[in-house]
Amino acid sequence: MYSSQKIMKTAQIGLIGLGVMGANLARNMASHKIRTLAYNRSPEVTKNFIKNFGSEFLDGEMDFGKFLKRLDGPRKLFILVKAGKPVDEVIENMLPDLKKNDILVDLGNSHYRDTIRREQFLRKKGIYFVGCGISGGEEGALHGPSLMPGGEKKAYKEIRGVFEMIAAKDFSGKPCVTFTGNDGAGHFVKMVHNGIEYGIMQIMAEAYDLLRKVFALSAGEIATVFSKWNKGKLEGYLFEIAANVLAKHDEFQEGFLVDFIMDAAEQKGTGKWVALDALERGVAIPTIIEAVQSRFFSHEKDERTKLSRIYGKKWETESTKQNEMLSKNDIMYRENYERFAGIKDMKLRKSDEHVAGIKDMKLRKNNQRIAGSEDMKIFLKNLEEAVYLSLLSTYIQGCELIKRASEEQNWNINLVEIVRVWEGGCVIRSRILGLLHKACDRNKKIVNHMLEIVDIKDEFIKNLSLWRMVIAEIARFGIPASGLSSALQYMESMTSENLPANFIQGLRDYFGAHAYQRKDKKGTFHTIWTKFE
Amino acid sequence: MYSSQKIMKTAQIGLIGLGVMGANLARNMASHKIRTLAYNRSPEVTKNFIKNFGSEFLDGEMDFGKFLKRLDGPRKLFILVKAGKPVDEVIENMLPDLKKNDILVDLGNSHYRDTIRREQFLRKKGIYFVGCGISGGEEGALHGPSLMPGGEKKAYKEIRGVFEMIAAKDFSGKPCVTFTGNDGAGHFVKMVHNGIEYGIMQIMAEAYDLLRKVFALSAGEIATVFSKWNKGKLEGYLFEIAANVLAKHDEFQEGFLVDFIMDAAEQKGTGKWVALDALERGVAIPTIIEAVQSRFFSHEKDERTKLSRIYGKKWETESTKQNEMLSKNDIMYRENYERFAGIKDMKLRKSDEHVAGIKDMKLRKNNQRIAGSEDMKIFLKNLEEAVYLSLLSTYIQGCELIKRASEEQNWNINLVEIVRVWEGGCVIRSRILGLLHKACDRNKKIVNHMLEIVDIKDEFIKNLSLWRMVIAEIARFGIPASGLSSALQYMESMTSENLPANFIQGLRDYFGAHAYQRKDKKGTFHTIWTKFE
Repeated sequence: MYSSQKIMKTAQIGLIGLGVMGANLARNMASHKIRTLAYNRSPEVTKNFIKNFGSEFLDGEMDFGKFLKRLDGPRKLFILVKAGKPVDEVIENMLPDLKKNDILVDLGNSHYRDTIRREQFLRKKGIYFVGCGISGGEEGALHGPSLMPGGEKKAYKEIRGVFEMIAAKDFSGKPCVTFTGNDGAGHFVKMVHNGIEYGIMQIMAEAYDLLRKVFALSAGEIATVFSKWNKGKLEGYLFEIAANVLAKHDEFQEGFLVDFIMDAAEQKGTGKWVALDALERGVAIPTIIEAVQSRFFSHEKDERTKLSRIYGKKWETESTKQNEMLSKNDIMYRENYERFAGIKDMKLRKSDEHVAGIKDMKLRKNNQRIAGSEDMKIFLKNLEEAVYLSLLSTYIQGCELIKRASEEQNWNINLVEIVRVWEGGCVIRSRILGLLHKACDRNKKIVNHMLEIVDIKDEFIKNLSLWRMVIAEIARFGIPASGLSSALQYMESMTSENLPANFIQGLRDYFGAHAYQRKDKKGTFHTIWTKFE
Repeated sequence: MYSSQKIMKTAQIGLIGLGVMGANLARNMASHKIRTLAYNRSPEVTKNFIKNFGSEFLDGEMDFGKFLKRLDGPRKLFILVKAGKPVDEVIENMLPDLKKNDILVDLGNSHYRDTIRREQFLRKKGIYFVGCGISGGEEGALHGPSLMPGGEKKAYKEIRGVFEMIAAKDFSGKPCVTFTGNDGAGHFVKMVHNGIEYGIMQIMAEAYDLLRKVFALSAGEIATVFSKWNKGKLEGYLFEIAANVLAKHDEFQEGFLVDFIMDAAEQKGTGKWVALDALERGVAIPTIIEAVQSRFFSHEKDERTKLSRIYGKKWETESTKQNEMLSKNDIMYRENYERFAGIKDMKLRKSDEHVAGIKDMKLRKNNQRIAGSEDMKIFLKNLEEAVYLSLLSTYIQGCELIKRASEEQNWNINLVEIVRVWEGGCVIRSRILGLLHKACDRNKKIVNHMLEIVDIKDEFIKNLSLWRMVIAEIARFGIPASGLSSALQYMESMTSENLPANFIQGLRDYFGAHAYQRKDKKGTFHTIWTKFE
């Protein structure tokens, strides 16, 4: 065991909780020569950790009392325990030993309302509480996460130096950390980050679904598509790893691993939190909510299998039927589907073909006929644009929720900074954030809605029609795509001067005397409705 | 003033709260010779009410103590006050005077969780509490509502006779009332009823929006369409009143009233309640949630107007651009748009034309070119089918939520009875409910999902391709239609044996080591992912 006690008497940071995230964050800090003292409820864990990673900057302490005594004052305590009750327990445990101006930093996935409650409680005792969102998973924690701290600004200033050292870097090399706002702001921003992550993954999954079901591409071929997309405007962490996930061969048998993974997506709850919060506030984030609901659908595997059979909807046969149904005008037979873009290596393609579970090559050809555009190359290009605009829409939905919450909670969140700190370290980092960052930066004057920003508008306008075409085609193919289509719906709704809610108001006034407002007059009106003959 | 005191000494029912609903329900009861005694917090209201409607079966009492004494025991007290705190206040006020076996019936729009709480509280005191959903608005309360009582069955038996007399009648003449289940079951069912109502109105509004924006029909012409639809498979209360709402001329100026109503739809919260509840339970009800979010969009009138201009999206110009964009194959020029179905009276049509705000007749012709099918008649028929299947999907989403909640809350709700009592009296009554009732009735054995029932399946299968085509066309036109398209998405998702959630699970395992399950093996798996080159 590394005997560090002799070297490190006191530490700058005390870290509580040596799960994967805590351990990696501690190593990250030590690697930046930040004297870090770690504590874990189970002494064995601490011992093992220090045995493996102890250094002159990283030590462990088994006794909690001693742990607290070995920290420079005012003490900075980074808490990395499971969100919920464990956080309260940790706070309660150390409360008697805490002193005025000590700073507790909760780096877990806490609900922002818990953070608000804890901050208020501790503030009365003169103790600072910082709720800090952290994204990037294990990798990020070790090599540089995106950090979203919220709380008392004075407290943030005390830990800012440490945070800036350990954080990832944005596109211009600045650390991916910013003070988000008071009390729960940081955990709120992180929650929305996760909501956006749900939306992005849902959209990617729908593109994957379309390519495998309608165009009968194998997972390996789709990996090539995602890999190509990751070199263009869709570049981002999730696209990077998508290619790796799709191309992975199974270890138990021939074929791609992804084809054997159960299609039932779990969730740890943050997606649901965003959905509930947005509904409470009256903010529309349809793509994020659809992504959450898609996970509900995914869990109905047995029922879906049953219904798929009842509805004769093995997608292969279904899309064949679909062909027959489509008006002849809509179908251009694609002889040259072999020219399909992005699949460089036709040999790889051939070998992948049986892997995809496509036994019937005739069927595959049949499905590929109906790309709805000149050839597969063009369709893939169009799909890339549709995915791009759908992602842009999803980021904007999340950002608009942050803006509304910031107003309502008096957080005064600087959105330019939020999109900046997402540029590096976190799961949703992508080239799109660079666009959003620049666009918001150039428009520092308050805009009511991000869709107003000219750089963003230009992106949408350029390919709006194309986007619609792709969504329309997917609907015709009978492929579920609630993420992609709700992203378009968001855009259509927000840019419609006239929505049909006037008709709904008329109906409501008719059956419930709920009254309505007029476009041309002030006041509230109620009509004595008469029958139409 | 009618001096009824001499005639009616004691009453069978005591009714508290003489708002529109309470007053009409009291009159309804009296009309069935149920001795009813009314009380209102403000004596003036009671006095006026009795002056107008008092009879040997309907009397009022200003003094609450006397009111309680003039009721037959065990007392049956119908509470019709505003949901929320007022209900608790009424209960608290009378608590000291209540006796064992008294029955309180809350006929307001209470949240079912409040009902559960109240029922538990009062049960301990030996007092029965029935939470009763009621639908049908003022008209229903007076002439026969749909009633959804929940609570202790023993208590329901005591009021069953009264309820059966005052309720509306279903398609076979039986009263639209059934015992739903314990504690909050009735108010839960009513809440879902309202969610379905949101979904239906949203879908109707989208059809209206399409007809006015793409096909440039006037409100009067659209009234004719809805009126025609109300004679077919879409027949239902909301379609009936839709025609009346749309055909109403404005009282201030030439034109249709609906065109002057502000497109900002209010809500009283029940839609949001359903959305939150379904998300908490993990049940997907996308169409209802989209309907709720559409109301959020509707309130952004200023922002939408601004964005509509920034995006050059006055729908007229937009749909013209759209035409140019659509591949030539997709467009059939419709010379004969004059053959448009359902508009019998061409003179009416001509006179309505400038009313619709369509100044440029060329534009109108231009928009009507792109019906996407043989002629307008066929397109309208297709739209009718799409609306029909979307509504069917919406009802099913609501019913499935009820089934899940019933299991989780041990309510043992009989869904056959629920769809039956919705056949009459309530806002969502429609011919579709007859189908659902029959379909469920024939399939009394437990089915896991309503989509399994053969009569329902047949409806979907018949026009599934058409449904997809219409949704696809609407997407291409750039008309927001999140209700219609989410209804289709629901169907597509539930009938897909394979959703792409396997890919999402792969991504989650990659970045967060969240692990996954396999289709071919039991257990939980985690992969050490490698880079794809």
